[in-house]
Amino acid sequence: MSNPASLPPDGAAASRYRHRVAFFETDAMGVVHHSNYIRHLELARIHWLDEHDQPYRIYAEQGLHYATTRLEIDYRRSTVFDDVIEIAVWLDWVRGASMRIDYELSCNGACVATASTVHAMVDRKGRVRRIPKERAENLRGLALRPGPKAL
Amino acid sequence: MSNPASLPPDGAAASRYRHRVAFFETDAMGVVHHSNYIRHLELARIHWLDEHDQPYRIYAEQGLHYATTRLEIDYRRSTVFDDVIEIAVWLDWVRGASMRIDYELSCNGACVATASTVHAMVDRKGRVRRIPKERAENLRGLALRPGPKAL
Amino acid sequence: MSNPASLPPDGAAASRYRHRVAFFETDAMGVVHHSNYIRHLELARIHWLDEHDQPYRIYAEQGLHYATTRLEIDYRRSTVFDDVIEIAVWLDWVRGASMRIDYELSCNGACVATASTVHAMVDRKGRVRRIPKERAENLRGLALRPGPKAL
Amino acid sequence: MSNPASLPPDGAAASRYRHRVAFFETDAMGVVHHSNYIRHLELARIHWLDEHDQPYRIYAEQGLHYATTRLEIDYRRSTVFDDVIEIAVWLDWVRGASMRIDYELSCNGACVATASTVHAMVDRKGRVRRIPKERAENLRGLALRPGPKAL
Repeated sequence: MSNPASLPPDGAAASRYRHRVAFFETDAMGVVHHSNYIRHLELARIHWLDEHDQPYRIYAEQGLHYATTRLEIDYRRSTVFDDVIEIAVWLDWVRGASMRIDYELSCNGACVATASTVHAMVDRKGRVRRIPKERAENLRGLALRPGPKAL
Repeated sequence: MSNPASLPPDGAAASRYRHRVAFFETDAMGVVHHSNYIRHLELARIHWLDEHDQPYRIYAEQGLHYATTRLEIDYRRSTVFDDVIEIAVWLDWVRGASMRIDYELSCNGACVATASTVHAMVDRKGRVRRIPKERAENLRGLALRPGPKAL
Repeated sequence: MSNPASLPPDGAAASRYRHRVAFFETDAMGVVHHSNYIRHLELARIHWLDEHDQPYRIYAEQGLHYATTRLEIDYRRSTVFDDVIEIAVWLDWVRGASMRIDYELSCNGACVATASTVHAMVDRKGRVRRIPKERAENLRGLALRPGPKAL
Repeated sequence: MSNPASLPPDGAAASRYRHRVAFFETDAMGVVHHSNYIRHLELARIHWLDEHDQPYRIYAEQGLHYATTRLEIDYRRSTVFDDVIEIAVWLDWVRGASMRIDYELSCNGACVATASTVHAMVDRKGRVRRIPKERAENLRGLALRPGPKAL
């Protein structure tokens, strides 16, 4: 993620999600508390599924969830109450039961943070499950690169 | 709640729960965001059940929950990061499927807020259920006053 | 609030704010945790100021805040992930340094909750301040009824 | 972090912080929402400062904050309402204006997550500042390894 200015990468099937900062998201430093961006990633991810895959609600109704197994975020700039954060979000890779999603958060054209999350598909009991075939095929067509072999 | 200084009322089976304010609970006014006190009430209420009834976990394992149906809170003074809030909590009344719990939050001897919550017992599907007999008997022995007739 | 179906009352300068329930707002009962509605009230209130008064950001930049001094909410029905909650919000009354705002939350036409919040204008140090004259005049023109005399 | 069983590493000046999972931290999957662990890291970090450095409140009173600039977390196992999470926390490295803190979260002896956060010291306006000399000396004596040269 050396050059945030070029994110999302060429060829990515990206969505853009806009979030207006709520007052309750700020902290006593006067800026958005760093834990709240993790929730913004979820909002953006669910928006991406809406636009490129299927509403997350449908997965949930089938008892399937993309549990978060890894999260990485670099905070570059703070935001304040009423700022509008624009989140670019795209699929990096997908494997049989997992996928990685990448994000760039910006505000007024400046990079706020870059992040990535890895998710494993699990059932109601938390057991890992393969991504349903139709969904997996769709996602593979949208991924930016092949997934790691030995995840 | 005209005289917070005398809370909890004489005769109440009260518990006291202490909460140290986290940084992530503050907002850009430099004080604890008002929505967080609602969560403190829950912590105190669950502590009261631990001490006077049974762990809430046991209700939950049986698929029973005390859903919150009403909440009232008067904020009197703000608190800041690292303050220790002491919450006095007691049972006001209990009826067949509901109960009211009262709270006084204080910090360094000064009243921060007074609050009350009403709860209905519900099952996994959210349907109202009678409080299990043994629990109801225990709770009636702890209530400060009879419940309203026509709730 | 005996008849939620008729809310907001005739003559109220109401706004309507829509909120799509995030996954992180749900709890282990499968529904939105009751504390999150308090945050929805804030979102709706700030939207009301945008539409009928001035952006809250401008108050904040002047070091003025509408601190919440009282909150009352009746929960009538639960909501789940991805539900769209519509919040009707209007000004009930305004006085020299305080105001009360009322809310009705609904989902698919059914009432989810009714609520009211009271706010006191405070400065950066938390001291009560009169609402700036121009704003107070504007707000008085929007209030549904005169404020209580002895608040 | 290949072998969570051996964390914290030998020689680390570690603290252990215990957190009992609140009901409001769970989500509709029935487990703690992944965003909440980020807040547990903050609680553990502040506890570590209490035990090994100075209360964070003192930094805050001087207008200094350890802003989070990077966060990395691997989630290995879920936790549920009323679980007690034990968080081992230690200082990995410190430099002139930044430090890295590492964490292992466990529950009933099993690893829940491993994480690390990087922090930059900033003043009230968010400008990077050197860690005060006395604090920096103390922290250097506690760090597990030298900081990276070119951070």
